[in-house]
Amino acid sequence: HRRLDHPTLTATMPPIEVPMSMYAENRQKLCARLLEKLSNAREKKLLVLMEGGKEEYRYDSDAEKIFRQESWFAYLFGVKEPGFYGSIDVNTGYTTLYMPRLPAEYAVWMGRIQPPSHFQAMYEVDRVLFVDELAATLLGPERPDTLLLNRGLNTDSGSTAKPASVEGVTTPLKEGNGAQAGKPLPCDYDSLYDELVECRVHKSAAELRVLQYVNDISSDAHLAVMQQVKPGMTEYQLESLFLHHGYYYGGCRHVAYTSICGCGPNAATLHYGHAGAPNDRLIRDGDMLLLDMGAEFRCYASDITCSFPASGTFSPDQKMIFQVVQAMQFAVMDALRPGVAWPDMHDLAYRVGCEMLLKGGLLKGSVEALMEANIMPFFMPHGLGHFMGLDVHDCGGYPPALGLKKSEKRGYKNLRTGRVMEEGMVITVEPGVYFIDSLLDELVADVRLRELVDLEVLETRFRGFGGVRLEDDVVIVEGGIRNLTRAARTVEEVEAVMAGKIKCKEELPNRW
Amino acid sequence: HRRLDHPTLTATMPPIEVPMSMYAENRQKLCARLLEKLSNAREKKLLVLMEGGKEEYRYDSDAEKIFRQESWFAYLFGVKEPGFYGSIDVNTGYTTLYMPRLPAEYAVWMGRIQPPSHFQAMYEVDRVLFVDELAATLLGPERPDTLLLNRGLNTDSGSTAKPASVEGVTTPLKEGNGAQAGKPLPCDYDSLYDELVECRVHKSAAELRVLQYVNDISSDAHLAVMQQVKPGMTEYQLESLFLHHGYYYGGCRHVAYTSICGCGPNAATLHYGHAGAPNDRLIRDGDMLLLDMGAEFRCYASDITCSFPASGTFSPDQKMIFQVVQAMQFAVMDALRPGVAWPDMHDLAYRVGCEMLLKGGLLKGSVEALMEANIMPFFMPHGLGHFMGLDVHDCGGYPPALGLKKSEKRGYKNLRTGRVMEEGMVITVEPGVYFIDSLLDELVADVRLRELVDLEVLETRFRGFGGVRLEDDVVIVEGGIRNLTRAARTVEEVEAVMAGKIKCKEELPNRW
Ligand SMILES: [Mn+2]
Ligand SMILES: [Mn+2]
Repeated sequence: HRRLDHPTLTATMPPIEVPMSMYAENRQKLCARLLEKLSNAREKKLLVLMEGGKEEYRYDSDAEKIFRQESWFAYLFGVKEPGFYGSIDVNTGYTTLYMPRLPAEYAVWMGRIQPPSHFQAMYEVDRVLFVDELAATLLGPERPDTLLLNRGLNTDSGSTAKPASVEGVTTPLKEGNGAQAGKPLPCDYDSLYDELVECRVHKSAAELRVLQYVNDISSDAHLAVMQQVKPGMTEYQLESLFLHHGYYYGGCRHVAYTSICGCGPNAATLHYGHAGAPNDRLIRDGDMLLLDMGAEFRCYASDITCSFPASGTFSPDQKMIFQVVQAMQFAVMDALRPGVAWPDMHDLAYRVGCEMLLKGGLLKGSVEALMEANIMPFFMPHGLGHFMGLDVHDCGGYPPALGLKKSEKRGYKNLRTGRVMEEGMVITVEPGVYFIDSLLDELVADVRLRELVDLEVLETRFRGFGGVRLEDDVVIVEGGIRNLTRAARTVEEVEAVMAGKIKCKEELPNRW
Repeated sequence: HRRLDHPTLTATMPPIEVPMSMYAENRQKLCARLLEKLSNAREKKLLVLMEGGKEEYRYDSDAEKIFRQESWFAYLFGVKEPGFYGSIDVNTGYTTLYMPRLPAEYAVWMGRIQPPSHFQAMYEVDRVLFVDELAATLLGPERPDTLLLNRGLNTDSGSTAKPASVEGVTTPLKEGNGAQAGKPLPCDYDSLYDELVECRVHKSAAELRVLQYVNDISSDAHLAVMQQVKPGMTEYQLESLFLHHGYYYGGCRHVAYTSICGCGPNAATLHYGHAGAPNDRLIRDGDMLLLDMGAEFRCYASDITCSFPASGTFSPDQKMIFQVVQAMQFAVMDALRPGVAWPDMHDLAYRVGCEMLLKGGLLKGSVEALMEANIMPFFMPHGLGHFMGLDVHDCGGYPPALGLKKSEKRGYKNLRTGRVMEEGMVITVEPGVYFIDSLLDELVADVRLRELVDLEVLETRFRGFGGVRLEDDVVIVEGGIRNLTRAARTVEEVEAVMAGKIKCKEELPNRW
């Protein structure tokens, strides 16, 4: 009988309420920023116009995907349904939502058709109109001088945010689409994005409460998974346990990203878990596991990685690598505070990595020689971390106004931000050490670098090992950080969790 | 402590292997059909060219969605990775896959870069080339006389299948894109789709094995959910239990559609569970539950609905409505066989519904008068069922060659197929009775129809009740059907499952 048992069936912690005042505060912050930054903003009627996400279907079928709101729209309005638009008057803050007008059949298939008053009360905005009233409203007596539209480059994806687009309002009317003639409104595509980015980079107290909640449920879920791992399971069963814990106990229908559940050598594939490598390997007794999984709640992300031995007990080699990464992470967590530059933290992680791998017998020479040769990118090719918020790789890593340049140096060039830390930023700290075949081949082929490696140790003990990553989500506060994550971060803690001696995350130390 | 317990942790039934010969057979079937249907097919070099699905990201972010292959491509090639093209020579069956050429960094982030030989062995095709070799290959010595491209109308969604598109091959080269001049190949957009549809409508033995597997795991999961429901849970916890069961025990990473978990009045919203109504109501003791959930395995769907009382015991009213629907379903299952027209089955369900609702005291008059007045669409506004395969609402409901017209009659016009049943078709049988406010208002306002309803019974006992649906997936076989689904379908079975007396689906009768 393949039956699930849930003895604590109704002992759930209900998901937190996210107050609509959080979104009102986000809007106020944006307006205040725009008034400060844009000359003559006070003399003109500037209107921010945003377009929410639309329904999506699988290819040509009628299988509708579960809708997840677009992050920019979620930030300002908190609307969970597709097909909305929203506007904010920059001077007054007056906020209008435009909702889709639904056909009568909707009531049968999708549920009661709610009137604008329902959404006005639910989203606590000044007014709700229908999308089909948008053009007449903005072209009529309320006509703004300029529309501010959200266009700008996402420096993680290389994609561009899609600005709101309404025929007759932001673009000319197509021929034959009604008598309502006239030019579209003046549109400013350049003033909004960077300010909105800065608003999102600095999290409010209300946003931090949501981020703490989703981190709590994800920390719980990681712990539950660790307690249940046994050799003989498949990687995707761990993914399934995590997804279930987050949804069943925490109301998290989405995750912030595809779960990475790598065992053994798979842990060395940084974004393992995609459709071409779908977490489908059998877990063996001697494997290290690397689980990078984060729930999402009301579009806010978490991003946590735990690494541990499938057997529940570290082998000496597993212990060595784990403690290297732990030292890297702890050093950064201790140093991180307002005023430090993120690339310096990355450098610190690399330096500690060199020290520890030297001590562990894998590297040779001196720390200075190793840093000078920049050997660490062969073991940790990714950046130390990234901003996190509505997107798991959140916006604002390299804002043009700061003139930051991405380093061209190996390893450092993958940093997702070059910024100096400020209070209210939320960032991941996720050092790792991996044994990636293609990089090891390159390392071993380099006559200068191979001198710094004990090749026998590398080839006989560590090639095929996989990797270790430890990832926490922290908020920058006065004088330091507050850690949103609570996970097993020492050898002793990991073994105690897996032996059932530590039963919940509250029994783990809260170091930061 | 919010901990999951899984005492049967490793007692999993491993997912079945899907042999690549299934896809080879699908291709052979298509080629044979095309040779039969297209005049001069044998004299010409006709080449089917298909484009697989592409990677997708959340809006402008770098959060990659889990890739799910496009169904047409999945049918012919079984490729699970994004970015492929495929071609089939109609006369010889010679099959080429075109794989994306991946950058060197891929090895670090996504895993080992596999050569064409790897995919050739994995997908058992004649040849694997790179996508960037496609144009030169097809424009060179292998040049076909005509490309057959897949364009056609999906009659469920109203969307059009996207034919393969390759610059320089199916469309002219854009200026400046290389010296390789010349016209694109002759493209036939009209001959392929309808034949491919007919191939998909008639399932092979190999496909039926996959459909049976995904039905098995979904039947198991429904049973597990029923055993664990308790008042006080939320609807989405049932969704989570189902998703987890399908993935953890069955390796089903996707579901065929968004789970519908309606309790109480929500069961009357046919497509409840979407983002605007996300299964978030608390389940109460007196509620009926309607759970419409189906796992997906290797892109093949299942689609099962169970209805039962949250308390575990039917009230008299719940029992009455349940038995109406059960009678509707059983009557159709008994009558269904090759040669019967699907609209007649829908009519039969309506007729049995009238008989039973008359007996139950909700309707008045005679069955003939009720059928003549066409009252059933007010209680069951949807069609009786739909083809199922790679899409949950599978293609082929109204192929143009058959000249079938959709009925304009209320209720009947929502039928997803008007076809006569043939061996190898897979179809859902899903009658229901619902109490939908907007439809009841319309019913009660109609002076002719209201005479046929006991209004006091309706308003005092059933408005707000929600609804009942029973949905099984069946394959049409010689002389009848084979039921792929095994679920609790009588009052006694439901109560026995919920009391723990029936522990697994094998203890339920296999009626068809
Ligand atoms: Mn991360
Ligand atoms: Mn169905």
